Amino acid sequence: MSQRLHKTAFPVSKARKYLEPGPVLLLSSQFEAHSDIMTLGWHTVLEFSPSLVGCMISSMNHSHALIRDSGQCVLNVPSADLIDKVVAIGNSHGDKLDKFDAFGLTAEPASVVNAPLINECFASFECQLYDDSMVDNYNLFIFEIVKAHVADEPEFPPTLHYTGEGRFTIMGDRVLDRSGQFKPEMLI
Amino acid sequence: MSQRLHKTAFPVSKARKYLEPGPVLLLSSQFEAHSDIMTLGWHTVLEFSPSLVGCMISSMNHSHALIRDSGQCVLNVPSADLIDKVVAIGNSHGDKLDKFDAFGLTAEPASVVNAPLINECFASFECQLYDDSMVDNYNLFIFEIVKAHVADEPEFPPTLHYTGEGRFTIMGDRVLDRSGQFKPEMLI
Repeated sequence: MSQRLHKTAFPVSKARKYLEPGPVLLLSSQFEAHSDIMTLGWHTVLEFSPSLVGCMISSMNHSHALIRDSGQCVLNVPSADLIDKVVAIGNSHGDKLDKFDAFGLTAEPASVVNAPLINECFASFECQLYDDSMVDNYNLFIFEIVKAHVADEPEFPPTLHYTGEGRFTIMGDRVLDRSGQFKPEMLI
Repeated sequence: MSQRLHKTAFPVSKARKYLEPGPVLLLSSQFEAHSDIMTLGWHTVLEFSPSLVGCMISSMNHSHALIRDSGQCVLNVPSADLIDKVVAIGNSHGDKLDKFDAFGLTAEPASVVNAPLINECFASFECQLYDDSMVDNYNLFIFEIVKAHVADEPEFPPTLHYTGEGRFTIMGDRVLDRSGQFKPEMLI
């Protein structure tokens, strides 16, 4: 997937489609001239509208300070073929390193926030900090997704899911449709 | 997987192995004589030690009230063959229904908490409510995992991951080991 991906706008209230399955994310952030990318495994959807997501971002990460200062970030979903970049980013520190250059990723301007999108990721969610009241105690940032971009195809690229100790499982494109068993009001 | 599963104790600080990949969970809870099971997709690991997990449990769920009253629950990880039970539980309401009976699941006593384990799930994490300060605003409960039980094998049963609109993706047993690329201090 080295070619540049074409993504189109996606409804922010449906961001759960790509975040709820629990993939490893690449979080990009920027404050003034400093940008960073970090690998993020600890996140959860919290609400449809506003479209809220909670992310545990350790204060050990350079990104933590950038987000505190800027109040913004982008959550990018890498496909499984990016595993070696995901691992390398997770094992590097961003205060003196331009991770876009170092890891061969392409920064693209976002629509709403000032943090860069990562072109090579198949989905990117622009986020504004919504509630920082849990940051001091838990490093838990609550973001509002204000703009979503998703590649036109495939619908479900394989994603990486981290199990600790350097091992990932892969989510494939096998989809089980049980919508016929759902109450209509549950089909959101 | 209709036979009863044999599970053994698992380190609570390593609960991320089964929770971080983002599977759909069955959450069991009890207060006095009332028990409930709900389907839970919105959760994240927050800390290794204490072993903390954040769960968004809508106040529309009967379980929400039981957990507020008891301060306890169990997070159970179902394998993909339980999909029809997972869907049926997610589309039912527990105030007048015994879901263990209704859906053919086996309650087992937990070791530490008073909520029941679900035997048919391959992993069960006993939880005590640790912080309720985000419950009023976000229905976000922060639990401490105080005891963990995991089936002896297989190491990675296929799990269900929800994408909305009644569709699930399946996480298989394909594991990519990149531990050789990790800094030793990152291998937790």
